[in-house]
Amino acid sequence: MAGIEHPHSFFYPDTVAVIGASGTPGKVGHTIVSNMVAAGFKGRLIPVNPKGGEILGLPVISEVTALPRNLDLAVVSVRRDLVLPTLEALGELRCKSCIVITAGFKEVGLDGYHLEEQITAICDRAGMALLGPNCLGMINTQAGVNASFAASRPGPGNIAFFSQSGALCVAILDWALGAGIGFSKFISLGNKAVLDEADMLHYLNSDEDTRVILGYLENVEHGEKFLQQARIVSRNKPVIMIKSGTTAAGAKAASSHTGAIAGSDQAYSAAFHQTGVIRVGDVESLFNLAQAFSEQPLPKGPGLTIVTNSGGPGIIAADTTERSRLNMAQLTPETVQKLQELLPSYAAFYNPVDITADADPIRYRKALGIVAEDPMVHSIMVLLTPAGAADIEGTAQAVIDTARKYGKPMFAVFMGKRRVATARKMFRDAGVPCYAFPEPAVKSIEAMYEYALWRRRPELEYPELERDVERAGEVIETAIRRGENEIVEFQAQEVLKAYGLPTPQTSLARSSKEAVEIAEDIGYPVALKIASPQISHKTDVKGVKVNLRNADEVARNFKDITARAQRMRPDAYIAGCLVQEMAPADSREVIIGFKRDDQFGPLLMFGLGGIYVEILKDIAFRLAPLSRADARGIISEIKSYMLLKGLQGDKPVCFETLEQIILAMSRFAQDFPNVLEAEFNPVLVNNDRAVVADVRMTLDPKTMG
Amino acid sequence: MAGIEHPHSFFYPDTVAVIGASGTPGKVGHTIVSNMVAAGFKGRLIPVNPKGGEILGLPVISEVTALPRNLDLAVVSVRRDLVLPTLEALGELRCKSCIVITAGFKEVGLDGYHLEEQITAICDRAGMALLGPNCLGMINTQAGVNASFAASRPGPGNIAFFSQSGALCVAILDWALGAGIGFSKFISLGNKAVLDEADMLHYLNSDEDTRVILGYLENVEHGEKFLQQARIVSRNKPVIMIKSGTTAAGAKAASSHTGAIAGSDQAYSAAFHQTGVIRVGDVESLFNLAQAFSEQPLPKGPGLTIVTNSGGPGIIAADTTERSRLNMAQLTPETVQKLQELLPSYAAFYNPVDITADADPIRYRKALGIVAEDPMVHSIMVLLTPAGAADIEGTAQAVIDTARKYGKPMFAVFMGKRRVATARKMFRDAGVPCYAFPEPAVKSIEAMYEYALWRRRPELEYPELERDVERAGEVIETAIRRGENEIVEFQAQEVLKAYGLPTPQTSLARSSKEAVEIAEDIGYPVALKIASPQISHKTDVKGVKVNLRNADEVARNFKDITARAQRMRPDAYIAGCLVQEMAPADSREVIIGFKRDDQFGPLLMFGLGGIYVEILKDIAFRLAPLSRADARGIISEIKSYMLLKGLQGDKPVCFETLEQIILAMSRFAQDFPNVLEAEFNPVLVNNDRAVVADVRMTLDPKTMG
Repeated sequence: MAGIEHPHSFFYPDTVAVIGASGTPGKVGHTIVSNMVAAGFKGRLIPVNPKGGEILGLPVISEVTALPRNLDLAVVSVRRDLVLPTLEALGELRCKSCIVITAGFKEVGLDGYHLEEQITAICDRAGMALLGPNCLGMINTQAGVNASFAASRPGPGNIAFFSQSGALCVAILDWALGAGIGFSKFISLGNKAVLDEADMLHYLNSDEDTRVILGYLENVEHGEKFLQQARIVSRNKPVIMIKSGTTAAGAKAASSHTGAIAGSDQAYSAAFHQTGVIRVGDVESLFNLAQAFSEQPLPKGPGLTIVTNSGGPGIIAADTTERSRLNMAQLTPETVQKLQELLPSYAAFYNPVDITADADPIRYRKALGIVAEDPMVHSIMVLLTPAGAADIEGTAQAVIDTARKYGKPMFAVFMGKRRVATARKMFRDAGVPCYAFPEPAVKSIEAMYEYALWRRRPELEYPELERDVERAGEVIETAIRRGENEIVEFQAQEVLKAYGLPTPQTSLARSSKEAVEIAEDIGYPVALKIASPQISHKTDVKGVKVNLRNADEVARNFKDITARAQRMRPDAYIAGCLVQEMAPADSREVIIGFKRDDQFGPLLMFGLGGIYVEILKDIAFRLAPLSRADARGIISEIKSYMLLKGLQGDKPVCFETLEQIILAMSRFAQDFPNVLEAEFNPVLVNNDRAVVADVRMTLDPKTMG
Repeated sequence: MAGIEHPHSFFYPDTVAVIGASGTPGKVGHTIVSNMVAAGFKGRLIPVNPKGGEILGLPVISEVTALPRNLDLAVVSVRRDLVLPTLEALGELRCKSCIVITAGFKEVGLDGYHLEEQITAICDRAGMALLGPNCLGMINTQAGVNASFAASRPGPGNIAFFSQSGALCVAILDWALGAGIGFSKFISLGNKAVLDEADMLHYLNSDEDTRVILGYLENVEHGEKFLQQARIVSRNKPVIMIKSGTTAAGAKAASSHTGAIAGSDQAYSAAFHQTGVIRVGDVESLFNLAQAFSEQPLPKGPGLTIVTNSGGPGIIAADTTERSRLNMAQLTPETVQKLQELLPSYAAFYNPVDITADADPIRYRKALGIVAEDPMVHSIMVLLTPAGAADIEGTAQAVIDTARKYGKPMFAVFMGKRRVATARKMFRDAGVPCYAFPEPAVKSIEAMYEYALWRRRPELEYPELERDVERAGEVIETAIRRGENEIVEFQAQEVLKAYGLPTPQTSLARSSKEAVEIAEDIGYPVALKIASPQISHKTDVKGVKVNLRNADEVARNFKDITARAQRMRPDAYIAGCLVQEMAPADSREVIIGFKRDDQFGPLLMFGLGGIYVEILKDIAFRLAPLSRADARGIISEIKSYMLLKGLQGDKPVCFETLEQIILAMSRFAQDFPNVLEAEFNPVLVNNDRAVVADVRMTLDPKTMG
């Protein structure tokens, strides 16, 4: 798969050809040329059209083959049936990269799908990067490149944006122009035949003009590549994404709880969560966050202070803060004392600091300075209500100066629209985010704080696990050879043992006498389970009895179970009964499972057994491989975590063993790609130990003979 | 308490006096006069100032006493110490209503609080309505009345707005002007010394100029009055509110789960929910909803159809719809066929209907007409991406015409900002809501659909309950006389019986022999509980044994329990043990409680016992009195409701009995205002019956001798 081998040629080309250029204004092939010219492109721009002549004063070349060799970038906007020959010709010219605007490929059905496969193949052979097909193009505001047919032209900025939807590109360009937001790079990904979101992340990571990366995705093309890039990039700069697109995952048959619950959206959420990508639900949030991240430093802690000239909006802001992961900073006594010296007696000296309706810019400036010096304050929101006497622009200047002087994250909420328009422009020019109401400001600061936490977390540790892959592999291979699509019971136990997982003590008893002997050995109470290769659903023949407390009960039930099974299934060979130890005393049931996601591979699930998973959907997810911190996180994120920590003096369960089991599941899922789903259900855990009491695994039918 | 006895005089005054009028521009007393003049007030406007002279050409009266009798409205903006004498004088003139702009009352502390009490008293005596004090004033755009010192002047509209925060009034006026939103009435409530939100709801209900009522509240003044008005009004027109203000309710000591969990915010949520008031979290949502409600008819069902000229935004809209209570309408085969005849082959004929990027206004108009005629379609969202060739204004006209022709709820999402600005103005003038992105549109339609459901629901039924109030009253009176602050056990059982509630069969046994006799009578298994007036926490002396299965166990444990209790508490009189029937077989534990909210009275709580309430906070709330539908609702709203309905073939619990118990709790809470909190915990319920196994009640210390 060709990536951007020459990213500089793609984003900063010296020579650009527009193939399918047109002299007729309004046509796509004309708009691309005029956009390049209007963007002030300094390199060589070559329109290509069989008719020849001139377009916007530029001499037209009539044949692709007449283009210079080693061309940096070709923008292709020709009839669909001409796309493949054009790309072949470009490949022969050793053209470094191209953008295919033309539509009619994967998005129109099977026919287009096959054409697009050929596009990919041509580029692979020629080592040529390709954006599209079916896209709007690419804009690099810093290099005078507007290789798109967009009707709106964005200004420069430090935000990069890529989108899988060309229509959203159009809408956002128009909206951003109105809102005064500029871009460093603006990329319409189209069908992603070659270049995809992971390539963009990779490039934008080292792009000095880009401080924040925004993306709109409907799917991720290559899960592993995406995870790898996203993890690296979001350590360096914030990546904020919208992921949309409902999937028909629910339609697939599922053989376990994990299978039924873990859908594609959970996999995406886990992918974003584990790589530090910030996911938002709508376009406005995307840009609210983008502005905050692009303009202000990250808060060093959760403490927010509100400085306001009015009570009501201050309360709204404080309410929203309390509902977020931020908190209202507790000001130090020194700060409160300084505020008391500064402000009138009827002001509020605690957070929110209400400097009252008659506050002028001098009072704002002084109060902000006092607050900014307080070590408990990690970020500041300045609220202004445009009351009749307020000096709005003067106050804006005071806020801007304070932000510069102290370097603490500063956010303006200048309420209203008309009267604060000039101030809002001042803020935009000075790089202080300004909002019309408190809520989006709080959400932006919260996202920045969470991102700061993510950046600070230690490097992840992926512990090695001792295991016998060969022994487990034999079990699985044997099942596949036999055409089985599930592994249960004895065979599954074998796999658990190979991964060093604790299983309940179990032995086969061939007679009631032997059953009693084994039971005495294990210790009462025990369970009996019918053992017959022909009987897979034991409960159908009432083949399970639990909690047997003495020799008498064991002997009697052994006879009952085996006799009944033989009566009900005369065809079956009855080997006897399994005698099994009962659950650890006072144990909790948990479920640990995984399902293989099409894009991202094994998605692990953790939850408490029974209604917690089934009814309350109280489940956490992680993609494999899990780090030790992930194993801890997947346990502590469920709401019923308190039950595992122990209520009212109960002892906590042994978390370390649980984590080990989760890490083993993660390892197993990676070791055996031909296992589609697996579930330990239940895992019984108490303060002392844990056992995997039951397990089932589903094999990939594709791997079968 | 004086309400608006002459609402017409207040909102549509013929004669208005401005007391504290000033000739100096910029002063509040000048702004009010100039606002009245600028609003085009047609009646008699009388400035009052001791200096006399003229203000804006109007002759000034120097004394309040010289004002005409039966004045409609006086706007008071004088020094704080002059407010009371001014109101006295106005009262004597039989002035019908007034607005006190002056601040410095309840909001500044105890001193101001007492002054404000006198304001209320004066108005009560004089039968004078009063808005404020400490407010911005009132604006009635339809009557040329701007009795405020607002710097921005709103245009006319059919949205009424009242706010407890004057600063928010200022901000919203400025913002609404910028957004082109007008108002019918605009009211700053201030401290609500006389007129409050309930009065406003009452008046605005019959105000023909108002189609939607918006409110910002920090608290509700009189809970019952508010509930009564809100219930009536929201049957007639939508009421949309922001309620902010964090309360210190958590600080109060709580003697039950209900007490610990049921805070003031739950009471407000229940109040809004039960009266059909639509609660939103932020100012932008308030106005997004207001525009939708003020301009479009209510959807008759959940089916939304999206007509779009681009794929990506269509997917975003469909995603958001699927996450809401709306659904993507399934178009009829006839509709799909008509669309297939109309649209190019590469269009999408199912919902979202993608009429493709080259759609012109004619195609939009035809497609919208086809969709609007489909009976499965209850509302329509029209998406437009401003691609280069799009005829944006022409499409806007097509949408507007279709909305008018078919009368189905229609919402435009014209993505972007600059290029769609003219279209957005066309929509505003035509009364079709238009949004920049799909998400707020979906949220608005969802709120309208939910409101439509609320309006359609049948009248509530409040069943009568047979009960012996006297018998229960005696128990409670006796406890109060004795200075007890809790009612437990025997006495509480007495109350349960008076309300016809099922309790476990219980008798006092004075000897082990008697205990066995009683147990044989009840039937095994039984529980034993120490019976001593001095021992309230039975478990402290290990005074409870459950699940005793035979005569031997009962006799032995009777002796153990009584002996241990006597040993551990030599001071206590040991009456013997209570012998009690055990829980119904296979029963679930639920908790039914109430806590008296300061504003709204008894707030009932329902949840499953144990971790469901304590850890998972899976609880539903209702304010008393509960209707039969409320009793059903409080049960079915909890997430663990499925457990009560029965999992995997389990039978459902007897819901009717549960509802009866809840209704009895509601009735009891209303019958005895001196009971602060009560909790039935647990109530044990199976398919067949329910028993209230334990109960405790907390008495109001204020009612004690």
